[in-house]
Amino acid sequence: MSTSTEAFPALTNDLLLRAARQEPVERTPVWMMRQAGRYLPEYRALRADHDFFTVVRTPELAAEVTLQPIERFPLDAAIIFSDILVIPQALGLDVQMVKGKGPHFPDPLSGPEDLERLRTPDVSQELAYVFEALTLTRRRLEGRVPLIGFCGAPWTLMAYMIEGGGSKSFTTSRSWLYRHPEASRRLLQAITDVCVEYLIRQIDAGAQVVQVFDSWAGLLGPATFETFALPYLRQIAEKVERAHPDVPCIVFAKGAPYALPALADTAYDVISLDWTMDPREALRATGGRKALQGNLDPAALYAPPDAIRQEVRRMLQAFGPRGHIGNLGHGMHPDHDPEHARAFIEAVHEESAAMVSQS
Amino acid sequence: MSTSTEAFPALTNDLLLRAARQEPVERTPVWMMRQAGRYLPEYRALRADHDFFTVVRTPELAAEVTLQPIERFPLDAAIIFSDILVIPQALGLDVQMVKGKGPHFPDPLSGPEDLERLRTPDVSQELAYVFEALTLTRRRLEGRVPLIGFCGAPWTLMAYMIEGGGSKSFTTSRSWLYRHPEASRRLLQAITDVCVEYLIRQIDAGAQVVQVFDSWAGLLGPATFETFALPYLRQIAEKVERAHPDVPCIVFAKGAPYALPALADTAYDVISLDWTMDPREALRATGGRKALQGNLDPAALYAPPDAIRQEVRRMLQAFGPRGHIGNLGHGMHPDHDPEHARAFIEAVHEESAAMVSQS
Repeated sequence: MSTSTEAFPALTNDLLLRAARQEPVERTPVWMMRQAGRYLPEYRALRADHDFFTVVRTPELAAEVTLQPIERFPLDAAIIFSDILVIPQALGLDVQMVKGKGPHFPDPLSGPEDLERLRTPDVSQELAYVFEALTLTRRRLEGRVPLIGFCGAPWTLMAYMIEGGGSKSFTTSRSWLYRHPEASRRLLQAITDVCVEYLIRQIDAGAQVVQVFDSWAGLLGPATFETFALPYLRQIAEKVERAHPDVPCIVFAKGAPYALPALADTAYDVISLDWTMDPREALRATGGRKALQGNLDPAALYAPPDAIRQEVRRMLQAFGPRGHIGNLGHGMHPDHDPEHARAFIEAVHEESAAMVSQS
Repeated sequence: MSTSTEAFPALTNDLLLRAARQEPVERTPVWMMRQAGRYLPEYRALRADHDFFTVVRTPELAAEVTLQPIERFPLDAAIIFSDILVIPQALGLDVQMVKGKGPHFPDPLSGPEDLERLRTPDVSQELAYVFEALTLTRRRLEGRVPLIGFCGAPWTLMAYMIEGGGSKSFTTSRSWLYRHPEASRRLLQAITDVCVEYLIRQIDAGAQVVQVFDSWAGLLGPATFETFALPYLRQIAEKVERAHPDVPCIVFAKGAPYALPALADTAYDVISLDWTMDPREALRATGGRKALQGNLDPAALYAPPDAIRQEVRRMLQAFGPRGHIGNLGHGMHPDHDPEHARAFIEAVHEESAAMVSQS
């Protein structure tokens, strides 16, 4: 345990931590993936003057953006503003954010021989800006809500590093798993080693919860997931737990409902569900052994506030108030109305409090 | 039953029809989604002279392309070369195929008021070119293998008609379900009516099996699927069955494993699985009441032929030889090697025959 955390103000809202441990809560905690982002006018105003990776790399700006939704809404967690692609950058690949197109690698990995190009990063140096942003944000939060750190999962990062950006079907990276299984494993292990150290240092710097985003798990099938995703996800949870046994770890394997039983057998504390997963089916698949996070359809935030409340009620009833962290099934969309985000948050608070008091 | 089918040569390979009815087979039938397409040099040669929709709309060319993989490989079915977007075209929307980008609607539906722009098509006239292509192909097949007709599912077609083409997250069409539920239902019903007549007439013209492609079912969740996809899919199967009780119907709800139990309660005979779905889990979810189709990861065709055979063996063992139609979990990729497709087909034939003779 790092000494720096002792200097932080005491946490006054620990709902998220209790829900992650499946302890009783008086109401369901709620946050939203991409809660700091383009749907907020204050975010767009700040981004008008600073490009994406400048914000990520400047602790003062990253902290400011992280706190924007916290100042505006009664959220139960903050998540550090950053990007999963900082790890490929630390491994030596150039990554740019192209307006309206998303991430772009000018020089992605084109074959196994390109693994030579990757360096073994000094994480404490290369990603120091993230750790500084976490410490600064944690101080500014003054204990209001817990701060979440995160990283991309090895398979998802591998997919980007080979594809060179977003892609319709990621066929090049998927082909590696069948054409270059050994090189794939070497690459995945190299990424995993960085993920582990990165998350441990994020916690040292102030993160109170960490989440691993396997955004492209849905491109795999049960067999490839078991070989090329699960062992690395497992390692991350085990090693982070060894270093920080009290910090909850969340895993989000988007599009991979088939992975739920296997994930229930790992050291993760919480499994995050996308909106296509049925909560009751997920409870069955995980045997109630893990807290669950999610999973309102982000498109439901286009509905009028009354309809949002109805969707929230349905979600809360399916998960039950114990061991549930309210969230969307994926990130906020840039064209979402901030007032609809507020309707979502308030509905989770009010409806879950009513459910708890009635039970 | 139309009289025209009596004029067609008798079928010498009915494995697909028997598998669809869960009857015993001496080996597992196999075909591949997008088996006629860009991975074949003979297809690329023909397309060098004719654009995509010219091939679709010219029965002679559509028949030629449909037969290309049948001439080359020992497949157990042909599928008519066409496109799911012929229905939006028949409804009055312009659809172009843009090289390297996919389908493009210059003037998609921008709001509920745009439903006025849609016309009620005379399917027999508007889509006559498809029926002619089917009849011509069926004759040229000379009974070698059954001929599959198809259409897009109402939700998938609605998504394209609103989005105006492929999209990363289809947020506009998804937002309709929450913002304009009534207009969405009207649109879905209008599409469904065309789907029903279109499939019935395809069978009249020579199709011996039909498949409904809900390619974007995975954008929905359990609740939206139940409201906006399932009732329309159900109608299609029931009405086609009423008109042609002996013709097997296949449904492919890509990315929607949550839908399997509901689909097992419809009039479809076969449920097609994408590669992320675990065959044993699908058997459990459907209670063995339906034949299953699929579901090798298309990326597995990048593997060397020996490894492909191993993947095929794993697939066949999971499904069992009864009530299974071998296929990929999605379409062929343009950069697949035709010889790897052959390795897949031969492995399904040989390995399944060995399994059957040993059982």
